[in-house]
Amino acid sequence: MSLAAGRPYLAIPGPSVMPDAVLQAMHQPAPNIYEGDIVAMVQAMVPDLKKVAMTEGKVAIYIANGHGAWEASLSNIASAGDRILVCVTGRFGHGWAEMAEGLGLQVDKLDFGTKSGIDAARLEEALRADKGHEYKAVLFSHVDTATTVRNDPRPLRAALDAAGHPALLMADCIASMGCEEFHMDAWGVDIAVTGSQKGLMVPPGLSFVFVSPRAEAARDATPRVSRYWDWKNRIDPQAFYQFFGGTAPTHHLFGLRAALDILHAEGMEQVWKRHETLARAIWAACEAWGADNGALRLNVADRALRSHAVTALGLGERNGSALRQWVARNAGVTLGIGLGMETKEDPKGEGFFRIGHMGHLNAHMVLGMLGTLEAGMQAIGVHHGPGALAAAAKVIAEG
Amino acid sequence: MSLAAGRPYLAIPGPSVMPDAVLQAMHQPAPNIYEGDIVAMVQAMVPDLKKVAMTEGKVAIYIANGHGAWEASLSNIASAGDRILVCVTGRFGHGWAEMAEGLGLQVDKLDFGTKSGIDAARLEEALRADKGHEYKAVLFSHVDTATTVRNDPRPLRAALDAAGHPALLMADCIASMGCEEFHMDAWGVDIAVTGSQKGLMVPPGLSFVFVSPRAEAARDATPRVSRYWDWKNRIDPQAFYQFFGGTAPTHHLFGLRAALDILHAEGMEQVWKRHETLARAIWAACEAWGADNGALRLNVADRALRSHAVTALGLGERNGSALRQWVARNAGVTLGIGLGMETKEDPKGEGFFRIGHMGHLNAHMVLGMLGTLEAGMQAIGVHHGPGALAAAAKVIAEG
Amino acid sequence: MSLAAGRPYLAIPGPSVMPDAVLQAMHQPAPNIYEGDIVAMVQAMVPDLKKVAMTEGKVAIYIANGHGAWEASLSNIASAGDRILVCVTGRFGHGWAEMAEGLGLQVDKLDFGTKSGIDAARLEEALRADKGHEYKAVLFSHVDTATTVRNDPRPLRAALDAAGHPALLMADCIASMGCEEFHMDAWGVDIAVTGSQKGLMVPPGLSFVFVSPRAEAARDATPRVSRYWDWKNRIDPQAFYQFFGGTAPTHHLFGLRAALDILHAEGMEQVWKRHETLARAIWAACEAWGADNGALRLNVADRALRSHAVTALGLGERNGSALRQWVARNAGVTLGIGLGMETKEDPKGEGFFRIGHMGHLNAHMVLGMLGTLEAGMQAIGVHHGPGALAAAAKVIAEG
Amino acid sequence: MSLAAGRPYLAIPGPSVMPDAVLQAMHQPAPNIYEGDIVAMVQAMVPDLKKVAMTEGKVAIYIANGHGAWEASLSNIASAGDRILVCVTGRFGHGWAEMAEGLGLQVDKLDFGTKSGIDAARLEEALRADKGHEYKAVLFSHVDTATTVRNDPRPLRAALDAAGHPALLMADCIASMGCEEFHMDAWGVDIAVTGSQKGLMVPPGLSFVFVSPRAEAARDATPRVSRYWDWKNRIDPQAFYQFFGGTAPTHHLFGLRAALDILHAEGMEQVWKRHETLARAIWAACEAWGADNGALRLNVADRALRSHAVTALGLGERNGSALRQWVARNAGVTLGIGLGMETKEDPKGEGFFRIGHMGHLNAHMVLGMLGTLEAGMQAIGVHHGPGALAAAAKVIAEG
Repeated sequence: MSLAAGRPYLAIPGPSVMPDAVLQAMHQPAPNIYEGDIVAMVQAMVPDLKKVAMTEGKVAIYIANGHGAWEASLSNIASAGDRILVCVTGRFGHGWAEMAEGLGLQVDKLDFGTKSGIDAARLEEALRADKGHEYKAVLFSHVDTATTVRNDPRPLRAALDAAGHPALLMADCIASMGCEEFHMDAWGVDIAVTGSQKGLMVPPGLSFVFVSPRAEAARDATPRVSRYWDWKNRIDPQAFYQFFGGTAPTHHLFGLRAALDILHAEGMEQVWKRHETLARAIWAACEAWGADNGALRLNVADRALRSHAVTALGLGERNGSALRQWVARNAGVTLGIGLGMETKEDPKGEGFFRIGHMGHLNAHMVLGMLGTLEAGMQAIGVHHGPGALAAAAKVIAEG
Repeated sequence: MSLAAGRPYLAIPGPSVMPDAVLQAMHQPAPNIYEGDIVAMVQAMVPDLKKVAMTEGKVAIYIANGHGAWEASLSNIASAGDRILVCVTGRFGHGWAEMAEGLGLQVDKLDFGTKSGIDAARLEEALRADKGHEYKAVLFSHVDTATTVRNDPRPLRAALDAAGHPALLMADCIASMGCEEFHMDAWGVDIAVTGSQKGLMVPPGLSFVFVSPRAEAARDATPRVSRYWDWKNRIDPQAFYQFFGGTAPTHHLFGLRAALDILHAEGMEQVWKRHETLARAIWAACEAWGADNGALRLNVADRALRSHAVTALGLGERNGSALRQWVARNAGVTLGIGLGMETKEDPKGEGFFRIGHMGHLNAHMVLGMLGTLEAGMQAIGVHHGPGALAAAAKVIAEG
Repeated sequence: MSLAAGRPYLAIPGPSVMPDAVLQAMHQPAPNIYEGDIVAMVQAMVPDLKKVAMTEGKVAIYIANGHGAWEASLSNIASAGDRILVCVTGRFGHGWAEMAEGLGLQVDKLDFGTKSGIDAARLEEALRADKGHEYKAVLFSHVDTATTVRNDPRPLRAALDAAGHPALLMADCIASMGCEEFHMDAWGVDIAVTGSQKGLMVPPGLSFVFVSPRAEAARDATPRVSRYWDWKNRIDPQAFYQFFGGTAPTHHLFGLRAALDILHAEGMEQVWKRHETLARAIWAACEAWGADNGALRLNVADRALRSHAVTALGLGERNGSALRQWVARNAGVTLGIGLGMETKEDPKGEGFFRIGHMGHLNAHMVLGMLGTLEAGMQAIGVHHGPGALAAAAKVIAEG
Repeated sequence: MSLAAGRPYLAIPGPSVMPDAVLQAMHQPAPNIYEGDIVAMVQAMVPDLKKVAMTEGKVAIYIANGHGAWEASLSNIASAGDRILVCVTGRFGHGWAEMAEGLGLQVDKLDFGTKSGIDAARLEEALRADKGHEYKAVLFSHVDTATTVRNDPRPLRAALDAAGHPALLMADCIASMGCEEFHMDAWGVDIAVTGSQKGLMVPPGLSFVFVSPRAEAARDATPRVSRYWDWKNRIDPQAFYQFFGGTAPTHHLFGLRAALDILHAEGMEQVWKRHETLARAIWAACEAWGADNGALRLNVADRALRSHAVTALGLGERNGSALRQWVARNAGVTLGIGLGMETKEDPKGEGFFRIGHMGHLNAHMVLGMLGTLEAGMQAIGVHHGPGALAAAAKVIAEG
């Protein structure tokens, strides 16, 4: 019997659950875009947006998804024929590299597999080998949404510094911004890219490129940047429409204002702590299910390398898909599919699934999701270790 | 550290969680109320409403809360000086009796305490004692929202029949309609009263009186009924405004239409089963917490007498309030206060609390709420037996 | 060809156009009703509500429509057998009288027809004739929504005073409150009754009874008041639920809060002025259409007796209905039907229609509606005088 | 005295008034984007979208504003160094040309001023002069939103054919699609570009490029297209995310579905007719105001060249701005600023303003807007001819 007929819970790694206040803010008539309230609203929003990335640099707002922001960021600092280096820890690292190739860039990759973080020593070695400083930029995923590996930007910055290499350090923070601790300026990241639909809790359709002074300089050195992607007017607009290179995305801006209010009312430090604690609750449950010969495996073994916003899991055979379907049909929970985890034995990656735990997220949502996983594993007959839900509740109790 | 900053979950015994579709349906411009779509919509809604009560009788819709429906139902079948009998199993039984007194009725009560159901034998005895058939009606709560005792209407009907007493059997279904199995016609209930904000999943502001042919006849025998409460035109309107004795409650009607669509798409039998299964999951957890010298006690010991929509619990001392506060502040869950459970030792009833589990409710919501209770009991230091969450998940898994 | 496919405009005399802010405020999850934000919100709202009626008396909020408020107000100050006097200037005066009869009151009526206001001299005469002071109250419509006659309360108070009669002066302000100038205390009104769906701009479902100290005293002298209608606890609640005699109408309260914010941001004096000016624009157009042998007639000839919130008009034959249909189908405007204007020649009142111009109303809405009337009269072939739209625009220009 | 406190009316040339159904459709929880309802919804939406452009070609959906669509369309068919020809009839023609330059294209312009349409003979001449067929494309604005000149695509296609030139014919339909008659295939347009926020009645944030087979072939001949702008996968996606080159713009898609339902329920032919009739009503009023030495001037003298969706007007001196401010503050109407109309005497273009009359638009909205213009001109003391409002109403009456 289905027990799904209530408020559905979406636990995919983006779009995340939208706060009611965000959807309400978007439910309003079209505004004047030539003058009036929206102009002041956007100007006041820029500092709040930058505070999410902990930067005193600039920010360009794009009407685009994350792929658009990937292209935008590269378009400003490199031209066809230029060379970049991409540190890959999952499918989304490959994705950014492909966008670079689409712009005609020469792309070298350092691939660290699907279960490990970036080895900064290998990066440093590669940078030292680039004696002519051909690399315009080093790209990496703060969190790869597919593998759910989390890379600390600090050792990467240190590697660049140690190698004395001038390349820009560019971070894909799409799955991490607003969820994971991040200090763009203090950690020496030159360009950080994110989207609206994860930690920022706004429907997909906006993306953001945060820009350091070094990145600004790099853009100035770029011979030609396409008008839409050019961040120059977007970060220092003389007229309102220049923020957006044309018509303003009015309703997303209303939503973003509401989301930033929510984030800063809680405080970024507390937002990150909340994500971390809820992630530890999830890990506690998953580790318990995996113990005692349980089938469940966390994709990332090392807690220090696990994202606090999304968790990839393996259940073996086709059980990832079976579990997803059971909880969707019977319990009201939608889990994410495994992505980029295909193997010879599991060509469609049906043994895998992912839990999104980002953004507008509290103990009730997480514990309920975990409860349905336990019910689902029992229902589809997957062996799982005991004590998982109690272990998760204990993490919550201890705060 | 608070882990509450996500989608809040309201687990009080009404208003219940409103489905998005209901709130969306209410978000629309004011309609014409003299002619047009709303007229057809209401006419088509009446049969769907009656199907919730499983009656082929009539239904009167009131702009009023449950207290209004209490007064409305009595106003149609009794006049000042008339006598009624009220079977009380909690505070809301006393409440209906008070409304009757406010109308000048003579009220006799059979009080069955706060932990037991109605003893049909005592009722039969009382009816046999009323040789002059003075009692116009026998009132009872299908579920008393305070004690969460559930009374089966069938033995009460049998008692009336056995005593050969013509009194109307009047059920307060405010906390039960749309949650608990109920067959008004088949079970011999003459008048059933409910509100919009619990199993019907619509904001408070509408209430309903379902009327059997016997009840219709009783109204015809009543010398004068106040115009607002008179159900005569409401159940057989010649003009649209008569449905509502004046201006139609337009937006609540839009919401109700959406809610009835949700209920009947699932099917009433399945709706009742879902509530029952989710209630058993809650009981399994609560019984486990209470075992092994755990502090938690279900107010109603006998499973057969427990509501499937709301559960009253005692935690001792002031721990009911402490737990409520902890889960609200730290986990995003709002529990109901204890009601009518005050004792000499606990004059404010702070040892008690209630869980609402009615309406738009799925496994995720219930398991999440239970998870936060476990976390909360641990955090405030209340001893509780082990295995509760796993026990609840097991009930869910077994469907 | 239909030119209706845009934003529909509802110009009936209630429900009025709901401000977006009101509908947005109602689009939110169910709140806790035992404690928390809603309690403070309601307490803070009471003074704002009383400011609409310009009273320092009390206010009782009812989940009910206007008919409910009619019954509520009478229930508190009179008992079956008591006598009242009703000054009738249209169908709604008769309506309130019928509610009184339903409560068993003895009702005397002074009927002033459908085109004239109350003659205070006749009222004074009737009061002087009541030497035993049997009349508990004198009832009248501030504005009768059917005839759209507006009665000034001041001469009525003067008549009571001149006659030395202690009856309460009770005003039906359903169609006028929040639209027409009204000073309950200064003008000596004892009880004023209104609903949520007109000047208050909230969907139908709430109504309000404003209560002077004399009215409070009258209630205390009433032997028994039904619990639901009793205003005693509602106006001086000890617990939150007593405001509403049971479950709070949560979503209407959210909407009402938003509506009161809108009203008081504009200021009541300015709100009344705006209604008056827009009414004069409508009259200017209608008088122009009626000139030069035009068919259109304002029901109330005397400007001093015309409502600023609703206007009844006659167009002859079936042309009222024909015009309503034309503008609905072709221009996106819904007009009100004629009410209570049936004659032998026009047994269904199809020669009549009404324009609602109340609440959330600006020059654009009014001028657009008038424009479609001109187009409609031309399209259905009704003769109408020239210069109407320019005359209306002139009133707007002069402010 | 302000008479603005009602439902505001936005009459700027985009964003247009959003239908309630669109905003409601966007007010829903984030959906799963990996599978489920949204996949089927988008697939079914593509034919409905193409029907708006009257094409059996393909359509690419971009998360971008119109400027993004300009860049997208060019990116697919030309590379840096390639040459194009732009027919300019206002500021937006210049804008598209600038986007082309940003991509490194060689841009030749034919400028037809701000009050005239494209002279097809001059175009043919220019094409014949391009003996080497260097021009990859001829760009033009179907409607230029600044001057409000409307260009018929048919003579342009004829000029290309007559010259035997293989350049693609590319139409900027941002201000016209869904408002003005347009038959992409029948009229021989190769690429048509539009946005969501005008005739399509959805908030800004989506744009669309319609692609003929010839345009598809041109893209295949383009050596490299940036991944985000490449329409190849977008028009023939193998996986759902390819429709959008990444994360789907979920909420805009919900809105677009609702908007397309509205458009096709009315029927495109009727939608165009409605816009034309309402435009004629506006012209009738404006021409009357301009007569008799009135100050008002329609920017485009020739009715055949006037847009049915937006109208630029001059009022002399600073009166355009003064009028805009008066109606905004006093009557609830927001007009568009003049754009690209600056002169030596009026360096800020304050003598001009524009009326948007696109999308969700009916007779009530238009007549109300015109009424406030008459009031405003009178209030600010601008001389205007008589009979304007009656003339507009007459057009409406005649349909």
